[in-house]
Amino acid sequence: MEAEATRILIGVNESSLKGYPHPSISSRTAFEWTLAKIIRSNTAGFMLLFLHVQIPDEDGFDDMDSIYASPEDFQSMRQRDRIRGLHLLEYFVGRCHELGIRCEAWIKKGDPKEVLCSEVKRVHPDILVVGSRGLGPFQRVFVGTVSEFCVKHADCPVITIKRKADEAPQDPVDD
Amino acid sequence: MEAEATRILIGVNESSLKGYPHPSISSRTAFEWTLAKIIRSNTAGFMLLFLHVQIPDEDGFDDMDSIYASPEDFQSMRQRDRIRGLHLLEYFVGRCHELGIRCEAWIKKGDPKEVLCSEVKRVHPDILVVGSRGLGPFQRVFVGTVSEFCVKHADCPVITIKRKADEAPQDPVDD
Repeated sequence: MEAEATRILIGVNESSLKGYPHPSISSRTAFEWTLAKIIRSNTAGFMLLFLHVQIPDEDGFDDMDSIYASPEDFQSMRQRDRIRGLHLLEYFVGRCHELGIRCEAWIKKGDPKEVLCSEVKRVHPDILVVGSRGLGPFQRVFVGTVSEFCVKHADCPVITIKRKADEAPQDPVDD
Repeated sequence: MEAEATRILIGVNESSLKGYPHPSISSRTAFEWTLAKIIRSNTAGFMLLFLHVQIPDEDGFDDMDSIYASPEDFQSMRQRDRIRGLHLLEYFVGRCHELGIRCEAWIKKGDPKEVLCSEVKRVHPDILVVGSRGLGPFQRVFVGTVSEFCVKHADCPVITIKRKADEAPQDPVDD
């Protein structure tokens, strides 16, 4: 009988091109890398934790065509966001179920890098895996500082998985 | 039959307190963490690569009491360094042998952070694991920038393992 399973927390987000429920290329790459290189055939030795952090939609761009006439309309908007997030998580939970890997998945609202680090403090995973768009230093000023922040501030070892070059869209922001 | 083994490169160095052949607390912590959290019982699924980088001893402090009378004396000094490094690697290779994990180990001279990254380019490991003394921002100015450099520059995912707080000597430089 093996010791307690190694708990790996993976931060996942939606594709910026295709939107929900499609996972971003970076999230999928980080997940597949973890399966192939760490878990391998030892499915009983690991437990995966999937955290999706939704950024509060302050400018409401996604909802430009909606009409808000009552408090219930806002409630239904929040409900819709939540369902979209759940469909994203369904992808990863479904894959784990096929492979026989124990997992848990949940959604939080907030700044992804801050929430990832506070959730590490709360759930104490053995490893945090985050995908990265693998941008150059110039592009990094505008996007993709989540992994760098976590490497510095998370209270557990962090693995940053850069997207494979052949999977990168021409514009790296299209993840 | 599983896919090709996951190759993990671990950078190891000697204890700054006890000297050769004793591994530093950080190296041992990184190695033991890799065994417990990644390899677990799946010893056939992984191969460990141990790299010890010796910093060229430019000021010759260690050899203050030696007399150098001929080119051969210098040769024997270099030979002695090499043997000390081999005894350090023997610790890790011995542990792997006991556990039935395939491994390779070698020594290079140079700046540890530069050599670790160039060896990643040469041997293409799946993961680089480096220990870290876990110093605060002030102490980090003087020591322990290897892991930060590798996270930024190595061509493979990097895991930095910070030493456990209860294993840290009072002066963090005494590793």
